[in-house]
Amino acid sequence: MPVLPTPDASARPDVVALDDVLGADPGTYRVLTGDRPTGPLHVGHLFGTLATRVTLQRHGVDTVVVLADYQVITDRDDTGDLPGTVREVVLDYLAAGLDPDATTIFTHSSVPAVHQLMLPFLSLVSVAELDRNPTVKAEQAASGRALSGLLLTYPVHQAADVLSVRGTLVPVGRDQLPHLELTRTVARRFNHRYGHVFTAPTAMLSDAPLVLGTDGAKMSKSRGNAIELRADADATAAAVRAARTDAERTISYEPVRRPEVANLLLLGALASGRTPQDLADEIGGAGAAALKRYVTDALVAHLAPLRARRAELARDPDVVGDVLARGAARAAELADATLAVVRRAMRQTS
Amino acid sequence: MPVLPTPDASARPDVVALDDVLGADPGTYRVLTGDRPTGPLHVGHLFGTLATRVTLQRHGVDTVVVLADYQVITDRDDTGDLPGTVREVVLDYLAAGLDPDATTIFTHSSVPAVHQLMLPFLSLVSVAELDRNPTVKAEQAASGRALSGLLLTYPVHQAADVLSVRGTLVPVGRDQLPHLELTRTVARRFNHRYGHVFTAPTAMLSDAPLVLGTDGAKMSKSRGNAIELRADADATAAAVRAARTDAERTISYEPVRRPEVANLLLLGALASGRTPQDLADEIGGAGAAALKRYVTDALVAHLAPLRARRAELARDPDVVGDVLARGAARAAELADATLAVVRRAMRQTS
Repeated sequence: MPVLPTPDASARPDVVALDDVLGADPGTYRVLTGDRPTGPLHVGHLFGTLATRVTLQRHGVDTVVVLADYQVITDRDDTGDLPGTVREVVLDYLAAGLDPDATTIFTHSSVPAVHQLMLPFLSLVSVAELDRNPTVKAEQAASGRALSGLLLTYPVHQAADVLSVRGTLVPVGRDQLPHLELTRTVARRFNHRYGHVFTAPTAMLSDAPLVLGTDGAKMSKSRGNAIELRADADATAAAVRAARTDAERTISYEPVRRPEVANLLLLGALASGRTPQDLADEIGGAGAAALKRYVTDALVAHLAPLRARRAELARDPDVVGDVLARGAARAAELADATLAVVRRAMRQTS
Repeated sequence: MPVLPTPDASARPDVVALDDVLGADPGTYRVLTGDRPTGPLHVGHLFGTLATRVTLQRHGVDTVVVLADYQVITDRDDTGDLPGTVREVVLDYLAAGLDPDATTIFTHSSVPAVHQLMLPFLSLVSVAELDRNPTVKAEQAASGRALSGLLLTYPVHQAADVLSVRGTLVPVGRDQLPHLELTRTVARRFNHRYGHVFTAPTAMLSDAPLVLGTDGAKMSKSRGNAIELRADADATAAAVRAARTDAERTISYEPVRRPEVANLLLLGALASGRTPQDLADEIGGAGAAALKRYVTDALVAHLAPLRARRAELARDPDVVGDVLARGAARAAELADATLAVVRRAMRQTS
């Protein structure tokens, strides 16, 4: 009697949601995710990527977080005080609940083997394919500069980041799907040309709510519209007080027509475990001033334990260095092993 | 009384000849040169790049030779038995007179810091500049394949090779001048953006005669028209006997009109320390058979000591590994120091 074929690793789905991952065995995936350390993290990160990472970590998924310190120059010449920024971001991670005993945190620059994968990976993609990447095009247009060799090859660097540590799940926003598709292409072409080495990673599309800045635009330090995790209660109150609203007296939750008010409702709701609609119904005619008081109180209360923990961590001069050294050691172990397999497959070593 | 300004390093010439270098203090330059290990070396290398390297070494110039093992895949998928090819090339180097006590020989893959310079260097050049490189265009056309990310960025890899070891002199053929110009651009832009770190290297245009293969085309193993250094006297005689000539009875030195005969005259002349014209005058009406006998005898005699030394070296199972280990250690010392300075200049480290 014929037996149904066993699904193999190549039959993994291209895209999943967080719930799919939480419904699967924790050993199914290794997550690779990260940040470019361009500034300290803010509440947009907390309710977005950081919440996702902590959830994955609690589910027992092996999670690897790269601080892409080398890639800060992709859209700027001056990295600022990069070691200082890296330190702030690691403190944000730890305060938000990333546990260095469970999650690997490392800087790009501390793992040489990641960079050594660039050369073979670059041989697997054509310039025409790189040129077609819509995210690269958009980022170049936003930068107002000529397309640099670094930005063109950025998706190949991402492929090296992901595949060096054998990441099989990469949390992405919709705009990052083309980058990840290139990582999948690199993995498949390498396997086709040199024999099976890589699992093409699965994209995990975020279902986290997008928190905007206090001006209704994307939250970012450089726009001055961010509520930083490391800020204190007074700075948080001042940022919320200065947030843009609109001329309508009554508060209602209408994300498309009233984005600034909807964003404040979202922030208040996330910080207090309610829904934005529920919050809008409660505040109603009390208006924007009442809404801002609510958001401030909710945020300050929600962030208080995180901030207390962060302040305590920041007093220890060794904690960040220790976390990064442990992370670099584990990432290097993974990446060195990958590089050895890659070079053997390519017959560059015997 | 005013003192004339001291010429500084930035006033180095863009292009020099070997004689200029031999006329200068040996400490003026550090040479970076190398080969892609695609096969064992042949007499074209011996009378060309190898002769130049030995001359530089004897003059006391610090010479660094990179075996670009990683870059073999630039124009092919399959590297063949790369460790075996690297071994053959190192034996060729040593037999031809490169002295590992004076000259640093290392493989690209053994020095991680070289690869870590790629990312910052890619940020310094635009895709438009890379696209314009005529040598890359020609190599892509010759390959008959789509332009890969690796070939497009090849000149940036070369910049990393040269600048990682602080090479200040690079022997090139005329067709390689655009590559070196890109290295100079990377050096200057880095200095402009982050402060003076690099000396823009000088090109040394080769004045070595170009030896063609036995069919009158470029000598290369893959064309089967090469006389390998590692071959024996019989194989050398057979290769010369099979060499193409033309229908004219009398031997004359006319490189443009009679390239195959001129090439045999050149080979015979180089091997016997004479001039091709002198040799043609001597052989004259004795014809092609006499010419081939002369070339065979001259080559076999000239190569005999090299081949004896090579056979002796090949019997030692450790010699190649030792040379490469010493070379990798010195190159890594240079490249690690460069990377540290680069990252400090970019404020990526404190």
